Amino acid sequence: MALNKQKYSLDTIRHSLAHVMALALQRLYKEVIYGVGPTTENGFYYDVLIKKLNNNGLSAEDLLKIEEEMKKIIQEGLRFKKSVLSLSEAKKLFKKLNQPLKLELLNDLEKYGTTDIDEISKIKELKLKPKPVKTITIYQTGDFIDLCRGPHVKNTKDLPLSFKLMKISGAYWRGNEKNQMLQRISGIAFLTDKELNNYLNFLEEAKKRDHITLGQKLDLFHIDENIGPGLILWHPKGAILKRIIENYALNEYLKNDYYLVNTPHVAQYKLWQISGHAGFYKESMFPLIHLNEINPEEKVDYQLKPMNCPFHILIYKNQIRSYKDLPLRYTELGTVYRYERSGTLHGLARVRGFTQDDAHIWCTPEQLDEEIHNLIKLSFRILKHFGFNDFEVYLSTRPEKYVGTIQNWNKATKALEKALQEEKIKYLVDKGGGAFYGPKIDIKLKDALQRLWQCTTIQIDFNLPQRFEMFYIDKNGKKQTPIMIHRALLGSIERFMAVLIEHYAGDFPFWLAPVQIEILPVLDKHLAYAKSILKKLKDLDYRAEIDFSEETLSKRIRNAEINKIPYILVVGDKEINNNTVAVRKRGKGDLGAYSLEKLIAGLQEEAK
Amino acid sequence: MALNKQKYSLDTIRHSLAHVMALALQRLYKEVIYGVGPTTENGFYYDVLIKKLNNNGLSAEDLLKIEEEMKKIIQEGLRFKKSVLSLSEAKKLFKKLNQPLKLELLNDLEKYGTTDIDEISKIKELKLKPKPVKTITIYQTGDFIDLCRGPHVKNTKDLPLSFKLMKISGAYWRGNEKNQMLQRISGIAFLTDKELNNYLNFLEEAKKRDHITLGQKLDLFHIDENIGPGLILWHPKGAILKRIIENYALNEYLKNDYYLVNTPHVAQYKLWQISGHAGFYKESMFPLIHLNEINPEEKVDYQLKPMNCPFHILIYKNQIRSYKDLPLRYTELGTVYRYERSGTLHGLARVRGFTQDDAHIWCTPEQLDEEIHNLIKLSFRILKHFGFNDFEVYLSTRPEKYVGTIQNWNKATKALEKALQEEKIKYLVDKGGGAFYGPKIDIKLKDALQRLWQCTTIQIDFNLPQRFEMFYIDKNGKKQTPIMIHRALLGSIERFMAVLIEHYAGDFPFWLAPVQIEILPVLDKHLAYAKSILKKLKDLDYRAEIDFSEETLSKRIRNAEINKIPYILVVGDKEINNNTVAVRKRGKGDLGAYSLEKLIAGLQEEAK
Repeated sequence: MALNKQKYSLDTIRHSLAHVMALALQRLYKEVIYGVGPTTENGFYYDVLIKKLNNNGLSAEDLLKIEEEMKKIIQEGLRFKKSVLSLSEAKKLFKKLNQPLKLELLNDLEKYGTTDIDEISKIKELKLKPKPVKTITIYQTGDFIDLCRGPHVKNTKDLPLSFKLMKISGAYWRGNEKNQMLQRISGIAFLTDKELNNYLNFLEEAKKRDHITLGQKLDLFHIDENIGPGLILWHPKGAILKRIIENYALNEYLKNDYYLVNTPHVAQYKLWQISGHAGFYKESMFPLIHLNEINPEEKVDYQLKPMNCPFHILIYKNQIRSYKDLPLRYTELGTVYRYERSGTLHGLARVRGFTQDDAHIWCTPEQLDEEIHNLIKLSFRILKHFGFNDFEVYLSTRPEKYVGTIQNWNKATKALEKALQEEKIKYLVDKGGGAFYGPKIDIKLKDALQRLWQCTTIQIDFNLPQRFEMFYIDKNGKKQTPIMIHRALLGSIERFMAVLIEHYAGDFPFWLAPVQIEILPVLDKHLAYAKSILKKLKDLDYRAEIDFSEETLSKRIRNAEINKIPYILVVGDKEINNNTVAVRKRGKGDLGAYSLEKLIAGLQEEAK
Repeated sequence: MALNKQKYSLDTIRHSLAHVMALALQRLYKEVIYGVGPTTENGFYYDVLIKKLNNNGLSAEDLLKIEEEMKKIIQEGLRFKKSVLSLSEAKKLFKKLNQPLKLELLNDLEKYGTTDIDEISKIKELKLKPKPVKTITIYQTGDFIDLCRGPHVKNTKDLPLSFKLMKISGAYWRGNEKNQMLQRISGIAFLTDKELNNYLNFLEEAKKRDHITLGQKLDLFHIDENIGPGLILWHPKGAILKRIIENYALNEYLKNDYYLVNTPHVAQYKLWQISGHAGFYKESMFPLIHLNEINPEEKVDYQLKPMNCPFHILIYKNQIRSYKDLPLRYTELGTVYRYERSGTLHGLARVRGFTQDDAHIWCTPEQLDEEIHNLIKLSFRILKHFGFNDFEVYLSTRPEKYVGTIQNWNKATKALEKALQEEKIKYLVDKGGGAFYGPKIDIKLKDALQRLWQCTTIQIDFNLPQRFEMFYIDKNGKKQTPIMIHRALLGSIERFMAVLIEHYAGDFPFWLAPVQIEILPVLDKHLAYAKSILKKLKDLDYRAEIDFSEETLSKRIRNAEINKIPYILVVGDKEINNNTVAVRKRGKGDLGAYSLEKLIAGLQEEAK
C-alpha cells in the first residue's frame, strides 16, 4: 500500500478506521446501537449493541465479513464530512438516528460540559460549576454519523488496508458494571503490511510464551473455581520454582544485613485505622471479619493484610531504638491479600493474593545516601541475576499534596537521584508523580519481547513513622523520627514469575528449572542403577527425578523435552557396565557418556 | 508430717483441703458466696465471691493469711460431718445460708438430675427425660456447709500441712463468659513436704524455662494488642529460628519424595461446604468475609483456612491420576487460622494463627503398609534430630460412629500397628478413640522436665476422598478411591517452638541458635578485622554478628552469654597480628586462640 505517511498521524488513521468499521456494521446488521469508538495502543475498537443478534454476539466469521466490508468502504472513497451543530440540533439528530447512548453523552455534555465519568463525579461531588458546551461536531462517512471531536482523514481512500479485526469481547457501557454489556470489536492497524505482520508475529510469539498457557502445560499452577478468582494453587513444579526464587532473594537480603521477620495475615481493624489504610486503602482491602458472628462477646473486627508495613513497624516499636541500632532492615516474604475486581484479574500477573519480597528500612538522615546507594546496587544485581538486562527507571517527585517537610523531601529525592547517577543508571523523572507520603524509584523490566513490566519499587515514607509515632534516641539522648524506606525488589513474586515464564518461554536456566535432571532407565532392569544416580544427585540438592513410565525411551525423551528439562540422563546396559550416564543437554543435544563425577563437576559449574 | 497414706487417696485429701480453705475464707471474710471447689492435677481450688472486698480481689498477702488459717483449722481437729437431705430441705438450708450459686446447682439437680452444663444442654436439646434426684449429701466442717458428693477425710487432723496456696485468678461462674466473674483461689497439695518441695522446684524450673518469658528475654517474638491475641509477631531471632526449623523439616520431606505445594490462606465458603468443615468444624473457624460488603455485585463469602487439606485435594484433582502416580505426597508449610476463645490462648502453645509442617499422602491399599512404615521412621528420625528421645505413642481405633468400610478400617489400623511393632515402638491403644474419618497415631514428646507435649499426628482419612470424589485409575483401567493420610510431624511450628524453647531453656544447640557466633572487637580499631571475619562466616552461611556497642568488653561478653550465643570470638591486637580469633564456647569457656580455618573446621563438625 502506498500511503502518504506525512499527511495523517497513525492515531488519526486508527480513529478513522473505527468509523469505517462502524459504517460496515451498519451496512451488515442495520440496527446498531453505538457506544464509543476510540483508538488503542495498536489499533482501535468500537463498543456496539447489534439488535439483530439478540445478544448472541458476533463470531470469528463475522469478523472476516466486517473486515471485507471495511475494505470495500475504503476502496469506495467516501468522504469524512465534518459539521458543527448546536447541542439541541445534535440531540434531535441522534434521537432520529435511534442512538440512545449518543444521546446520553450529549445530555452529559449539556449538563456537565464533559462526557468523562470521573470528571462528572468530581463536578457532582465538589459541586463545581461546569464549563458550558454550546456546539459539538459530528462526522459523516457514507450513512454513518458519529458524535466525534475528530480529526479524521479526508477520504476513506486515505486509509491503509494494513489492519485486522482481532477480538470480540464484552464491555460494560462506560465501564460500569451496573450498565448494560456491549460488544467490543477490536482491531489493530499499522501504516504498512510489514508493520502489521511484525505485530502479528509478536502476538504469536507472546501467545506461545503466555504464562497462563505455559503454567498449565508445564503443570506449574492452577486457579480453582472452588477457591476463588485471583488465588493461586501452586502445583509441585510451580511451588518449587517459587521457593527457589524466594530463597535466592531472601539469602541475598540476609547477607546484606537485613533481618528476617514473620507476621500474621490478619490484624484487628484498629491497626488499619492507625496506619490509615482503613481510609485511603479501603477499596483495595478484603472486607472485615466480624468476630461477633462466631462469638457475640467478641466485638472486634479483623481484616486480611494488604501490606506488611504496620506489622514491621510494631516490631520496631517493641523496643526503644537508639541511633546505634540504625539502619534497621526488616524483610519478610509476606503474603498479602488485596481486593481487585474480578474483571481485572489475569493469571499470575494480577491476583488477589500474592507474596512480596518486602522490606522496610529505618535510618537516620545521615545514613540515607549510603542506604539508597546500596539498595540500588542490590536491586540491579538481583534483577540481572534473573537474566534481565534492560530496564526503564522512573524517579517520582513531590506531588502538590504531601506530608513531611520540604527539607526532608528534598534530601530524600536527592539521595535517590544521586544513587542513580553514581551507578550510571539512566532514568526519567516523573515530576509530581510521587505518593503523598514520599518520593520513589520504580524499575520496569524489559523482557525478551521488549515488553515492560513494573517490578521493583523503592519508596521513602514520611507518613507512617508519624502516624505510628516512631522514634529513635539520637547521640544527644533526644527522640528523633527515623526515615522509613519501603522496598520490594521482585515486587509480587507471583507477578515476577509471570514475567520469568514469559521471558524464558518456560525454558528456565538451570538454577531455576523446577526439574533440572530427568533420569531415564532404558528398561525396568535398569531402574536400580537409575535410583542410585537419583539418590546421589538429590543428596547434592539437585532437583532430579526418574521417568519409569511404560512409554518407549524415545517417547520419554520427547516428554522430558516438552517439559523443558535441562538435562536428560539415559541409563542402560552400557552405562551400567561402564559406570556412566548418557547425557543429553537442552539446546545442545547428545553429549555422550559421562562419569557421574564429571557430570556433577559440569552441573556445579552451570549452577553458578 | 506423719500421715496414714493408706487411709485416704490424694484426691480425697485435696478435696478436703478445698473445704478447709472455704472454712478459712468464711472465718476471715464473713460473707462469702461459694461456687465450686474441685480437685486439680496437683491440688485444688475454690471459686468464690468475697463480698467485703467489693471485687477488689485478694492479694498475695491474703493468700498467706488464708494459709495460716487453714493450718489452724487442721490443728483444731474438726470433723467432716456428712448428712443426707431431701432436695427441698437442701434448698431451704442454702437459702438460709445465703448461697445463691449453690441454690442454682440444686435447681439444676431438681430439674435435670445433674449440674453438668454439657449434659444439661444435651437434655434440653434432645428433650431427654432426666434421671430424678431426690436426695443430696452435704458436708459440714466447723461452720462451713457444702453441697458435696464427698468423700472426705474424717477429721481435719487427717490432713497434711504439705500444701500451698499458689494463685488467685478470675473464673466465670460455670465457665460461661455471660455469667459473673468469680475469684479462683488455687492451691497445690501433696502427701509429704518433700513431694511438695519437689513440685515447687519443678514449678520454679518450669518458670525459668517459660517460653513467654524467654521469648521476650531472647527477643524472639511478641503478641501485639494492635494485631490481636493469639497472633505472633516474630522478631528477627524468632523468625530465623522458625525458618531454620521449617527449612530442615521441608528439606527432609523433599529428600523423601514429597512434593512441595503452596496454597492461599482463604477460600470461598463453598469449598468448606464440600469438605464438610462448614459443618463439623464451624466453631473453630474465623467467621466469613462477605465480599458484598465491598462490592454489592459479589455475592460470595470467603473464609480463612483452618486446614490445608481441601487445597491439596484440589491440586490432586486437577489431573487424572493413575496408580502409577501413587503414592503422591504433597507437603506445605501452611499457615492456618483457627478461632480459639481468648481465655484459652497461651503464648506460642495455643494461638489463633500457626504454621503446620503439613502433608497429605494418597496411596493404593497395597502401598499403605510401606507408606506408614516410612512415615513412622521419618517421624522419629526428625523428632530425635531436635533432641527428643522420650515419647508416648497412642494408637486410636475405630469409634462407634465412623465413615468408610470395616475392611478398610481394619487394614489401616493394622498398617499403623504393624509399623509401630516393626520399629519396636511401645504404644498405648486408645480403643474407639479415632476420629470418625479414620484411625490415627499421635506422638507426644517428653521434654527436659518430663512434661508431655502433643506434636506429631498421623491420621488416615476415609471421609475427604469420598466427599471430593477423588479417584485414580487402577491397572485395569477402573476408577478407585485412594487412601488418604494426613500427617504433621512437628505439628504447629509455633507450638513446637514453645516446646523447644522450654526443653532447651533457650540454650539452643548450635544448628538451631538464632545467632551462632558473636564477634567482639576489643576496640574500635579492631572493627575492620572483625568485619572481615564476619563476612567469611556469613559467606559460609553461619549466623554471625558483631557487637561493637560502646560497652566494655566484659559487659559485651556477658551480654552474649545472656543471649545464650554458642560461640564468642574476641579480636584485638594480638589476634590481628597472629591472624587468629580468641574463642569462647558456651558451656566450655575460653578455648584460646584459633585460626579461622581451624575454627571453621570445628564449626562444620558441630553443625552436623
